Amino acid sequence: MMSPTYAHRVTRLQPSPIREILAVVDRPDMISFAGGLPSPETFPPLPDRLPADALQYGPSEGEPRLRRQVARLLADIGIEAPPERVLIVTGSQQGIDLVGKLFIDDGTPVAVEFPTYLAALQVFSFYGANYTRLDWAAPEALGLVPLVYVVPTFANPTGRCATSLERTSLAKVCAERDITLFEDDPYRDLVYGPCDRAPVVASMPPGSSWVYQGSFSKTLCPGLRVGFLVASDDELFTRLVRAKQASDLHTSRLSQALVADLVDDPGWEQRLADLCAFYRDRRDTFDDALDRHLGGLATWERPEGGLFYWLRLSAPVDTRALLGPAIERGVAFMPGEPFHPGPAGTGTLRLNFSHATPENADRGLAVLGALVAGTRNNPALTGC
Amino acid sequence: MMSPTYAHRVTRLQPSPIREILAVVDRPDMISFAGGLPSPETFPPLPDRLPADALQYGPSEGEPRLRRQVARLLADIGIEAPPERVLIVTGSQQGIDLVGKLFIDDGTPVAVEFPTYLAALQVFSFYGANYTRLDWAAPEALGLVPLVYVVPTFANPTGRCATSLERTSLAKVCAERDITLFEDDPYRDLVYGPCDRAPVVASMPPGSSWVYQGSFSKTLCPGLRVGFLVASDDELFTRLVRAKQASDLHTSRLSQALVADLVDDPGWEQRLADLCAFYRDRRDTFDDALDRHLGGLATWERPEGGLFYWLRLSAPVDTRALLGPAIERGVAFMPGEPFHPGPAGTGTLRLNFSHATPENADRGLAVLGALVAGTRNNPALTGC
Repeated sequence: MMSPTYAHRVTRLQPSPIREILAVVDRPDMISFAGGLPSPETFPPLPDRLPADALQYGPSEGEPRLRRQVARLLADIGIEAPPERVLIVTGSQQGIDLVGKLFIDDGTPVAVEFPTYLAALQVFSFYGANYTRLDWAAPEALGLVPLVYVVPTFANPTGRCATSLERTSLAKVCAERDITLFEDDPYRDLVYGPCDRAPVVASMPPGSSWVYQGSFSKTLCPGLRVGFLVASDDELFTRLVRAKQASDLHTSRLSQALVADLVDDPGWEQRLADLCAFYRDRRDTFDDALDRHLGGLATWERPEGGLFYWLRLSAPVDTRALLGPAIERGVAFMPGEPFHPGPAGTGTLRLNFSHATPENADRGLAVLGALVAGTRNNPALTGC
Repeated sequence: MMSPTYAHRVTRLQPSPIREILAVVDRPDMISFAGGLPSPETFPPLPDRLPADALQYGPSEGEPRLRRQVARLLADIGIEAPPERVLIVTGSQQGIDLVGKLFIDDGTPVAVEFPTYLAALQVFSFYGANYTRLDWAAPEALGLVPLVYVVPTFANPTGRCATSLERTSLAKVCAERDITLFEDDPYRDLVYGPCDRAPVVASMPPGSSWVYQGSFSKTLCPGLRVGFLVASDDELFTRLVRAKQASDLHTSRLSQALVADLVDDPGWEQRLADLCAFYRDRRDTFDDALDRHLGGLATWERPEGGLFYWLRLSAPVDTRALLGPAIERGVAFMPGEPFHPGPAGTGTLRLNFSHATPENADRGLAVLGALVAGTRNNPALTGC
């Protein structure tokens, strides 16, 4: 097996001797002068039903109970990995930062979908990424990049779900060329219609290098900041754990304990089903409102999952110029331009359909429709 | 005012358009299609007494209530800064990572105490720091480094508290040379004897560049992962916030809410007093046990605060070689070597006195004393 092509700084990523020792001294009979642990007798009382042991320092890898739960959830979708290769992260955003830290130097080529999740672009650019386009229809056109970042299932911003053939083709190309695949999959459980959601990494042969990431932000709630990732092998996992240690020691144990309780709840499966039903309704109502207010002004595909519609305006308007007038009228949206690595994408915008109530969605889309219709007579906006 | 000397990558640190928009759309009358906010109707029920609004995405800067509390605590120790320049971080470790990200490229000189906090060394080395020694007695000997990192109050690992003169001298040198001072101050409230704890940054003139950092890990508990930092000016603060956004979007809102409740509690001042009394007792008992078991074998100074004793063995033993035998006998400690940037420090070790009960401390120190005494007859350990 080839080692992944890491960033230069990874050679300087040393384990913390403290935390290596703490791992050993977890034995109940050990007298430890090693860490800087406060005495638990000094801890404040917690509100009822919260676990008192969430207050001390914890393992960087995450709470063992939650790691076991995640390993079970992963097995259900075809990713066989022991709990020992599951890392709990402070939201998916941290997973993106950790992978960026490990793989990206100034000038490192990184393949991404055009457009793609803009907070990933923000992090990767910070570390120095040079983007190259991943075309799902032709992954063999990828060069010898060290890293591919993809959101194959209900992509942000486009909502697109890659086909089974596209997934296996990408897995094959990455495995053949020793490209590390970073699969970001936060929307998998928000599914409203038929589509193929098999993880790309589940098709990768042994010896391939990959990171698969998921989140509890959409299935439970984002404010707790709990996500997870799993790595292809122990070597890559160990580096991710060290980078995690250096980033924040570990994720809030209280947040982890609450998530673990909720995942353990016998109502978990029903919760996911209810969630999909709720958001499917929102999507359908949103779709109708889009037809009413933006029909003929833009095109879109109804997403089979996730949280977003991606609109292409019929006129090539820079949608950033529409944002100010929209906000003045009490409506916010995301211009499509920042989702593109480099200049491109005028005339596109992303609309979230999960948050606004149906009544507000209708009112907001009416405002947007009127604004877009108005640009037809405004050469400053269309550049004609 | 000079701009700080940032790492090269800072030129690529862009704000997230999403979060910039979210800041605007916080108006209750706004219909937002912009973010990827889940619907709050889908959130799980929380245990009693926990704030339901902790479940949605929150501001990267932190909860406004907690930021106001921190600003008040800072004013009490002589740091005048508005809540708008307070950033809540996922534990002090994250503050170290953020500053490292902003200031350290491959080869950047960074001044630190020798020895100093090893998890800071771990992070700074990862980003590429070249260390130069800060001598508290002669800060004017510092070169033109972009960054100085110090733990002036009950330093980790030495427990030393810098004097008032040392603090003002360092502040003066940093201000004169446009060196950014990063003051890490997690132990300030754990004080057991007379000492000068005025923050270094409080002496710095307007226009100086600095970051001051504190933590709730010692005064409340570490498992929640809540710390804070404050920056000298808006420009530096904005960059720190962007780096924080890219790292984990924001700190667990549940953790923040619990900390804010505890700081608001009328018993907060009494809590700190009780904490000091508790740890002062632990230190005094530890001191007695040290005398009994390591008297004549090592020297140390009784720390006036913090959580650690720093021992210098009378024989130049590499204490890493003692760790294995100690752990076999059920006792763990931290060898002093990893706290030194570069080779140095044989014959030193750090002992935490806050966690072990007095009985265990006595038993553990007896084991250590016997091991250290044994090295006198073991040339392999002393190198004689």
